[in-house]
Amino acid sequence: MHIKKQRLLTPGPTPLLPRALHAMMASDIHHRTQDFIKLYPQVLSDLKEVYGTRNDVLIVVSSGTGALEASVSNFFSEGDKVIVLSAGKFGERWEELAKAFRLNAVTLKAEYGDAVAPARVAEALKANPDAKGVLFQASETSTGAAHDVKAIGELCQSTQALCIVDAITGLGTMPLDIDGWGLDIVIGGSQKAFMIPPGLAFLSVSEKAWQRNATATLPRLYFDLKKEKKMADKGESAWTPNVSHILALAEALVYIKSIGMDKLVENAQLLARATREAAVALGLRLFAPGSPSSSVTAICAPEGMDSGEIVKGFRNHFGSIIANGQGTMKGKIFRIAHLGYFDFPDLFAMVAELEIILASKGIPVEFGKGVAVVQKIYAEAALPALVKA
Amino acid sequence: MHIKKQRLLTPGPTPLLPRALHAMMASDIHHRTQDFIKLYPQVLSDLKEVYGTRNDVLIVVSSGTGALEASVSNFFSEGDKVIVLSAGKFGERWEELAKAFRLNAVTLKAEYGDAVAPARVAEALKANPDAKGVLFQASETSTGAAHDVKAIGELCQSTQALCIVDAITGLGTMPLDIDGWGLDIVIGGSQKAFMIPPGLAFLSVSEKAWQRNATATLPRLYFDLKKEKKMADKGESAWTPNVSHILALAEALVYIKSIGMDKLVENAQLLARATREAAVALGLRLFAPGSPSSSVTAICAPEGMDSGEIVKGFRNHFGSIIANGQGTMKGKIFRIAHLGYFDFPDLFAMVAELEIILASKGIPVEFGKGVAVVQKIYAEAALPALVKA
Repeated sequence: MHIKKQRLLTPGPTPLLPRALHAMMASDIHHRTQDFIKLYPQVLSDLKEVYGTRNDVLIVVSSGTGALEASVSNFFSEGDKVIVLSAGKFGERWEELAKAFRLNAVTLKAEYGDAVAPARVAEALKANPDAKGVLFQASETSTGAAHDVKAIGELCQSTQALCIVDAITGLGTMPLDIDGWGLDIVIGGSQKAFMIPPGLAFLSVSEKAWQRNATATLPRLYFDLKKEKKMADKGESAWTPNVSHILALAEALVYIKSIGMDKLVENAQLLARATREAAVALGLRLFAPGSPSSSVTAICAPEGMDSGEIVKGFRNHFGSIIANGQGTMKGKIFRIAHLGYFDFPDLFAMVAELEIILASKGIPVEFGKGVAVVQKIYAEAALPALVKA
Repeated sequence: MHIKKQRLLTPGPTPLLPRALHAMMASDIHHRTQDFIKLYPQVLSDLKEVYGTRNDVLIVVSSGTGALEASVSNFFSEGDKVIVLSAGKFGERWEELAKAFRLNAVTLKAEYGDAVAPARVAEALKANPDAKGVLFQASETSTGAAHDVKAIGELCQSTQALCIVDAITGLGTMPLDIDGWGLDIVIGGSQKAFMIPPGLAFLSVSEKAWQRNATATLPRLYFDLKKEKKMADKGESAWTPNVSHILALAEALVYIKSIGMDKLVENAQLLARATREAAVALGLRLFAPGSPSSSVTAICAPEGMDSGEIVKGFRNHFGSIIANGQGTMKGKIFRIAHLGYFDFPDLFAMVAELEIILASKGIPVEFGKGVAVVQKIYAEAALPALVKA
């Protein structure tokens, strides 16, 4: 059709909160003046509230990978042993980081689409009592699989290992009891459930992690979190901050607080469940049925079809931007995101689009069937009286 | 549910074109400098191209009502006889204007939801050979009914009457052959199919109208179109222009030209047809089945229900802003818009929302049934091979 709105529906960047985007226009302030020094502590405090932790929460100006690097360079020394859970492209990024920073990595692999079971982590911790950290993804964005963060956190608590969680797509899509589960470092990114463009990353740092930091000798300067904390305590950032993004984040955090982080998580979980059930109703196979994440649902392309055809269909027919698989999963899966500023009308439309795309490829589809599944799940959650009657 | 995106889905203001909205941020230019004088003639020229006429096309800084007033004050003298077609709230605005400017109005009324048939206009012109103008709406936004602009234009051509068309919601939603049909004044508004916020109105002015202007004595200053044209010919506006909106309009016109005005019209027509068929499939009654407009579809609330309940349902359950009826139609109808920056995914979602709202009010609804009707119409238009097979 002739009008095709570009809709950014990928698992990062995610749809932007309009009021946060508009706030970026007020960037004509200097970051070493009161204008900024009044703003920044409030943002840090709101971020901490949204993280739901008593730990320090810091902001760095980088992509999520910068914060992953910070979580290595600030807390380890050359040759330290770490246990790396690798279940997808982002697990492999931990492996790369461990190698680049000359850590001694014990890698627990899972097939793409699977998660590493907590029992394997328990075993590895037992076999490697000298392990100084466990590094993993809360939600492996590349496959749509989630790890059991609670179980892994609790396993680390009784050891010297820091529990380091890449929660870049986990925050806001799954419950994360940072203090209760003993999560020492929890990493987030601005372009995910925080609803603003890429450019900022976040880390919560536990007391156990700060103690390790005192003796960790890996080289660091830009990502020196101790310096960042010292400055944050004074209401400033260590280096020049990304002012436009801090302004956007301030708005986004007000919005997230107004909803409640638990409700944001519930929203993603419901959308994820509705997507899974709609996909199955349409005869499609889920890529990570065993431990599905609520940040993104990876769906296998129908037998004999390249998933790129589906991604292209969304873009060419409707202007909707969804994600293909990454690496070796490219062409095999497509990914529907749920993290952050996504709502049910987004999903009604996306599933209606998917049905048309499948039909256009010769797959037998009953129009409206998948949409009806999503509508039913919406109604069960939002209008329980209706469903009862 | 917890995340509800505010979606502005009313027949004006309509959804904004993002790139046009962003362009408004470049408003720090002076309107009597080359920065503006380079921009304005291009905008006027693109607007004329989109209007599809050889007539002059002028911009005034006002709401649409300001341009309606300009079309009276510039072309008539006190006591002039005019024929007013009144088929809704906007037809009544013509009546008010005629009264305020002391014209002698012969009013042809139609019931809300109906249009005035061209035969009645022919009769009135015959009975009133001294009529100096015929004033009417192309699309009566309050009822979703359309007038037969071609027939009425052609009737005026052989008389001294100016054919004055409020096409505020007609432009971009129905074919308007301004030169071929003899439409002397055609009025548009920025917040309609032009996809930008309210603040500007447009008028095309024929040679026949300019000739009348020379002898028209009604008082005017701000809306003096002759002065406006004189300044436009020099690349400027008569009074201080709305710079942000001119910048937005420049972007919107580039976008509309890239699609083509005929395709924009086709887009609205298809969405309107799909909305009508989906409404009927859901057991609802159309308010203007006889001469439905493609700018907005007015749908009757189910028997015994206030249409405000449906409007509230859209807003409270989903954050979607749709229109209630106006005046005495309030509570009886709700209106789904199609003009401008609307696409099929918007409609997939809107119909899915409507189904849930109806169900929540105890109306028996099969989820996905209306959506499937919309999907089918999309597929017929965009994927004809699929439908054949």
